Amino acid sequence: MSKNYCLIMAGGSGTRFWPRSRVAKPKQYLSLFGEKSLIQESVQRFANFIPEESIYVVSAKSQQAVLESQTGNLPKENLIFEPVGKNTLPAIGLAALFIAEKDPDGILIVSPSDHLIQNDELFRQTIESAALIAGRKDGIVTIGITPKHPATGYGYVQTSEEVNIGQPIRSFAVQKFKEKPSLEVATSYLQQGGFFWNSGIFIFKVSVFLNAVQQFAPALHADLMRIKEQIGSADYESALDKIYREVESISIDYGILEKASNVFLVQGDFVWNDLGSWEEVYKYDQNKDENRNSAAGEVVLIDTKNSYVYAPNSLVAVVGMDDVIVVQEGDTILVCKRDRTEDIKNVVGEITKRKLDQYL
Amino acid sequence: MSKNYCLIMAGGSGTRFWPRSRVAKPKQYLSLFGEKSLIQESVQRFANFIPEESIYVVSAKSQQAVLESQTGNLPKENLIFEPVGKNTLPAIGLAALFIAEKDPDGILIVSPSDHLIQNDELFRQTIESAALIAGRKDGIVTIGITPKHPATGYGYVQTSEEVNIGQPIRSFAVQKFKEKPSLEVATSYLQQGGFFWNSGIFIFKVSVFLNAVQQFAPALHADLMRIKEQIGSADYESALDKIYREVESISIDYGILEKASNVFLVQGDFVWNDLGSWEEVYKYDQNKDENRNSAAGEVVLIDTKNSYVYAPNSLVAVVGMDDVIVVQEGDTILVCKRDRTEDIKNVVGEITKRKLDQYL
Repeated sequence: MSKNYCLIMAGGSGTRFWPRSRVAKPKQYLSLFGEKSLIQESVQRFANFIPEESIYVVSAKSQQAVLESQTGNLPKENLIFEPVGKNTLPAIGLAALFIAEKDPDGILIVSPSDHLIQNDELFRQTIESAALIAGRKDGIVTIGITPKHPATGYGYVQTSEEVNIGQPIRSFAVQKFKEKPSLEVATSYLQQGGFFWNSGIFIFKVSVFLNAVQQFAPALHADLMRIKEQIGSADYESALDKIYREVESISIDYGILEKASNVFLVQGDFVWNDLGSWEEVYKYDQNKDENRNSAAGEVVLIDTKNSYVYAPNSLVAVVGMDDVIVVQEGDTILVCKRDRTEDIKNVVGEITKRKLDQYL
Repeated sequence: MSKNYCLIMAGGSGTRFWPRSRVAKPKQYLSLFGEKSLIQESVQRFANFIPEESIYVVSAKSQQAVLESQTGNLPKENLIFEPVGKNTLPAIGLAALFIAEKDPDGILIVSPSDHLIQNDELFRQTIESAALIAGRKDGIVTIGITPKHPATGYGYVQTSEEVNIGQPIRSFAVQKFKEKPSLEVATSYLQQGGFFWNSGIFIFKVSVFLNAVQQFAPALHADLMRIKEQIGSADYESALDKIYREVESISIDYGILEKASNVFLVQGDFVWNDLGSWEEVYKYDQNKDENRNSAAGEVVLIDTKNSYVYAPNSLVAVVGMDDVIVVQEGDTILVCKRDRTEDIKNVVGEITKRKLDQYL
């Protein structure tokens, strides 16, 4: 039986968690619940059933220091760095080269680093079912989350016939990947049935993946092969830098999953959320008080309800407010209506315009 | 003609401007509008027509450092300190001793240090009219503000017949001082006419005042005479400390004004506000943007209206909010609904309860 490897994708950057997420410290490195950061929770979730020497992380060179400081339990050679961000397919391709060197028949579980997942045991069973299918069918497997509501912020996966492998976890053949839908379309998906949220977790044999790259993204495959030749040489870094900058930026969804035929979906019934905003962090925080406030730090709440306050280094007092998010980070403070977290990107835009880079 | 002296009362402490007002830096020392603090604005307003050597300040010993740092233009001997706070009558009595030593026939203008006053020229005319009446009538004169609305947060002064001195500024005999009324009572005052807001500004000859203290507060007068004997001696501080601690705590309104018969009111038509809350600071700030926001510091406002944001040392971003007050001071942040500023005292109460004195 093939061995399982895990590849955690940690290259993301973003502004939706400003002021906590900064250019130098994106969301995956934040401790949004409890003490561990999202990437540390992701590593731990896999380390429950995959040895640490088989857990890899691919990230941006610019994040090397923070990544190393948060993943001290992983072998340093398992941290793979992109010189520049090129979306998911090149990142997975680059990391796959290193895993293929070690074990070309290994099964690779690719996972985002910055999602919320609860029910670790069900998660493990789901991943192991997926790994079984990936091994037996030489297929590309995705974890599909059973949709709870007609979300418009997620991609969907439409399934066809059920596959009878890896019971009791259910699995299906994939018919089609769907972009983020309108509310109307999402509602029709839920009524129709057979649709799942695309979790961004993919499972396949390393060899199956690299073959798919060769078939559907041959230019990228050629570039990866040129990089592969340099692995272990003194020129690796400079060669990688040169080749990778020219690589096409493309997602695994668009580059492979939507084109491949041998794609399966394993049904994920664990609690899952992509934590796209402070609003979702508020919703998933399990330590709310009797007024449904979520507060961390020295916080004084007077007649305040349904609010999220994070202030590790300040005293924050909130008086007479409902449905607000207050986040302090260093010398930066955000006060945002809970239903307006989409507009935090406009704050970041304004800070950029004012050239106040110290706050980004 | 008698010379005019000014006595600014700066002993107040308070929590309504937390987190900017702290135990060590009460409201009068804050720059709420522009660069000057309220006490500096008060001193300047009188210095327009009274020489600085005739301007005195009475304050608490605990505020000596901040007071001296903000009134460098006044002679140091004009700063009079109470060992403990004893309300307005003993404070004015103590300061009056020093002024009486210099000029017992001088006219003393007693004024709060922490109010907003606009129209400096009309203010000067009003005060000079009051000084004229105080000199000619040997009376106790108060400035009454023409009420703009049935405020329940101010005391009122009921007048009777008009006095024909100091035209064109109008003046009246005082019939009665009234405590802060209910809305119903305040409304009836405005309908009835002849009522004014009590500004806390009083004008009288020093000798008239000390005689009134002797008549209406004889115990306090006796204590003041004991203190007077020590002025200039090496034992002054220790004698003051000992005697003053035993003095009755009483306001000039209750101790003298409500009891004296020879009381006059001069009508004040300058802009006046006692700045009782952040809400009033917001209302009187004349530098609002097109969304009626008042913002100081590095502030980013996204779809935010009718709000007050003060953040001299932070970047504060406010998104999708109406009618909020956000104030940053050091490592302390207040977020308060504009109509809830009354509850800031509860924040201070909670901080006290948690023994977080560094935030008070």
